[in-house]
Amino acid sequence: MSMDIVASRSRACEAALKRVLELKPSVLGIGTGSTIDMFIDMLSSYRNAFKETRLVCASLYTCSRLAEKGFTVLHSSAVQLIDVYVDGADEVDPELNMVKGGGAASTLEKILAYGSRYRIYVVDYTKLVKRLGEKHWLPVEVLPEALGIVLNRLRELGLEARVRTSSSGKYGFVVSDTRGVMVDVRIPQNIDVRELERMLKSIPGVVETGLFIDLANEVYVGYPDRVEVLRKKR
Amino acid sequence: MSMDIVASRSRACEAALKRVLELKPSVLGIGTGSTIDMFIDMLSSYRNAFKETRLVCASLYTCSRLAEKGFTVLHSSAVQLIDVYVDGADEVDPELNMVKGGGAASTLEKILAYGSRYRIYVVDYTKLVKRLGEKHWLPVEVLPEALGIVLNRLRELGLEARVRTSSSGKYGFVVSDTRGVMVDVRIPQNIDVRELERMLKSIPGVVETGLFIDLANEVYVGYPDRVEVLRKKR
Repeated sequence: MSMDIVASRSRACEAALKRVLELKPSVLGIGTGSTIDMFIDMLSSYRNAFKETRLVCASLYTCSRLAEKGFTVLHSSAVQLIDVYVDGADEVDPELNMVKGGGAASTLEKILAYGSRYRIYVVDYTKLVKRLGEKHWLPVEVLPEALGIVLNRLRELGLEARVRTSSSGKYGFVVSDTRGVMVDVRIPQNIDVRELERMLKSIPGVVETGLFIDLANEVYVGYPDRVEVLRKKR
Repeated sequence: MSMDIVASRSRACEAALKRVLELKPSVLGIGTGSTIDMFIDMLSSYRNAFKETRLVCASLYTCSRLAEKGFTVLHSSAVQLIDVYVDGADEVDPELNMVKGGGAASTLEKILAYGSRYRIYVVDYTKLVKRLGEKHWLPVEVLPEALGIVLNRLRELGLEARVRTSSSGKYGFVVSDTRGVMVDVRIPQNIDVRELERMLKSIPGVVETGLFIDLANEVYVGYPDRVEVLRKKR
């Protein structure tokens, strides 16, 4: 990663952390990914300010890191409502809709975002796109038992799809923390992403997609020299 | 179970089996449940007629029973298209829409039905209802990690829901073969079931519902003295 991007992310994380400190959440949700790793490091240095805050995480890895640093980590099944949720994103469009799931954690990330009152995303400037799908394919989590039928259906729908494999760490198909297989789908140009979401979610065996529509309240965009905060227009 | 119902189911299974023999499927999907157990027993006595047929099943239990009886059972992930699918149902309405999942297998059952060219359901006459939800709550499979958030959301939507527990065999919440928790939801009167399906499927963490809409081609309804075959009106 270039120093440029590291500096941009670092600025965005700092600004987002300042915002979280203001909001004083009783339950704070934390996503996953390399930007969030940086956020967790900063959060730890404010450990005392979060003495009363309980955390809930979108991946085993995040849970483990936060527990190591002495935070109280809740079992997500027992959480009904999260006050503030902080996460990264792979792509953010001008309406603050997003593609997430490069790290295979989009299903839990979406559940936590959906269960939150206020959602803050932290990205560097390279994540901004004009339309979703410009740089990334859309991660779709599929029940392993349904893989053949879902791939066949995606093909019938004219969608390009490939099952994600790992270049290291696990041979063969990538499996998520929630035990699904990750299928990456190319987002067709000129498709309405809401329609794409409905189409994908109507296929039995599709657990969740990495399309995050209307799930961002604020996006902190880091640049090497500044941070811009994008807010959802009403 | 009364002799009356046993006789009704047995007649329906026989008629459905005759139909399957006519259709000569290359890949045959089999659901799960007490009626299907009866169907499997009959199928076994026609083992020779199915020498060229490969099977795919909606539950570990069905897979295991069929393998024991010497059938070739495929890994469902490798199947793209099923020629004929046979299953039972908990409720069937006049449009042949159904509620399934009393046995906690509705997710795989729905995936296989969706991946099939032709779907045959086998029920006794007590399963016919005027509207879905008359006798059964709707089974909804939920990712364990999302349980609190999904239950909270169902409450916000004004839906009555309870997590299914077992009266024997497993202490606490029932977990499906696909590792989800079963949440039973009361179907409100006068709700459009298609709208209910859309509403439930849009909640992240909901893996699948037991609403089977437009997924039956034929329903074999057994009575003590006869079988009626219902077909989807176009």
